[in-house]
Amino acid sequence: MTDSNVIEIENLIKIISKLPGLGPKSARRIVLKLINNREELVKPLTNALAQVYKNVVRCKNCGNLKSTNINCICSSEKYNQICVVENIADMWVIESTGIYKGHYHILGGTLPSFEGKNNKNGLLIDSLINRVKKNSVKEIILATSASVEGETTSYYIADSLKDTNVKITRLAKGVPVGGEIEFLDDGTLYSAFKNRSPLIND
Amino acid sequence: MTDSNVIEIENLIKIISKLPGLGPKSARRIVLKLINNREELVKPLTNALAQVYKNVVRCKNCGNLKSTNINCICSSEKYNQICVVENIADMWVIESTGIYKGHYHILGGTLPSFEGKNNKNGLLIDSLINRVKKNSVKEIILATSASVEGETTSYYIADSLKDTNVKITRLAKGVPVGGEIEFLDDGTLYSAFKNRSPLIND
Repeated sequence: MTDSNVIEIENLIKIISKLPGLGPKSARRIVLKLINNREELVKPLTNALAQVYKNVVRCKNCGNLKSTNINCICSSEKYNQICVVENIADMWVIESTGIYKGHYHILGGTLPSFEGKNNKNGLLIDSLINRVKKNSVKEIILATSASVEGETTSYYIADSLKDTNVKITRLAKGVPVGGEIEFLDDGTLYSAFKNRSPLIND
Repeated sequence: MTDSNVIEIENLIKIISKLPGLGPKSARRIVLKLINNREELVKPLTNALAQVYKNVVRCKNCGNLKSTNINCICSSEKYNQICVVENIADMWVIESTGIYKGHYHILGGTLPSFEGKNNKNGLLIDSLINRVKKNSVKEIILATSASVEGETTSYYIADSLKDTNVKITRLAKGVPVGGEIEFLDDGTLYSAFKNRSPLIND
């Protein structure tokens, strides 16, 4: 028998070690840091979690996360472009690059590749069509994955929007920066050849 | 302007990225996982943190963490050995090895190496002396760091306990497992030579 095994601590370690990138050892280190900084960390963290639990919801129009107290930015103004992504993580990655500074539409997943297209899998596709019509959007940038599901979803969206005048583009496919030709798959090489561009444009 | 920047989310990311081993990127990934698992993660985590904040205290007798509802194990029974460590993390590391299965005493730090010994730095030294006397402890294992402060603290404790009959030991010093002689410092080599043992004992 040892001096430790406080149930509250073991419980907290167990939950924290379920978080991505963390295991029992790092969770233990985090809990120790928390316990040694109750007022500076445990209290604010508890409050912040409670706030997120209470106030953060998914916007039914654009799929983004928003605060219940505030109107989602997707309903507040007119805009010309919408970048369509599968999930929030994809949006955050694109945002962090600073390449695209416009509005997003978060589908919430992809269509299953081998089932009928009638199964929309709970994706926010109808509301995308509404957004395009309501805001007279000029361009839809499809930033879904280059997987079979991502492609299926992209084609389905393009098809759903064919009655509008919106221009539909998708991210370029090709050799990733730093990629070695030797290790590329056939599909990527095919796209890279097909979409080759004059060197001086680079 | 982008579709994100929900104040509750940014706030949670900020706090989580202060935890050891985490940065803004991993905090963002954790928050995303939390938001996608409100009932399974956010709620239990909030409760677990509140429980730790409310119920976990440091035992004034042995320095270990304990639940307010339960008597600390240090006061509940007689024991023969106490392993003295500087902090909880040290105890957890020793515990995880399973080498020592006895009672601990957590000092809460070390004595400053260059100040007078009258400055006890808030360390639980008096209560250690009380524990030794009260439980007729047979052995104190000093597992403080091999730093100047750790050594100073060890010698101070040994000195404080000289009136009791307790046997005082400390962790062996020598070549760490996997350590290469070429890169060892003089102090470690000196200890390793001084404490050399017959090969057949290993």
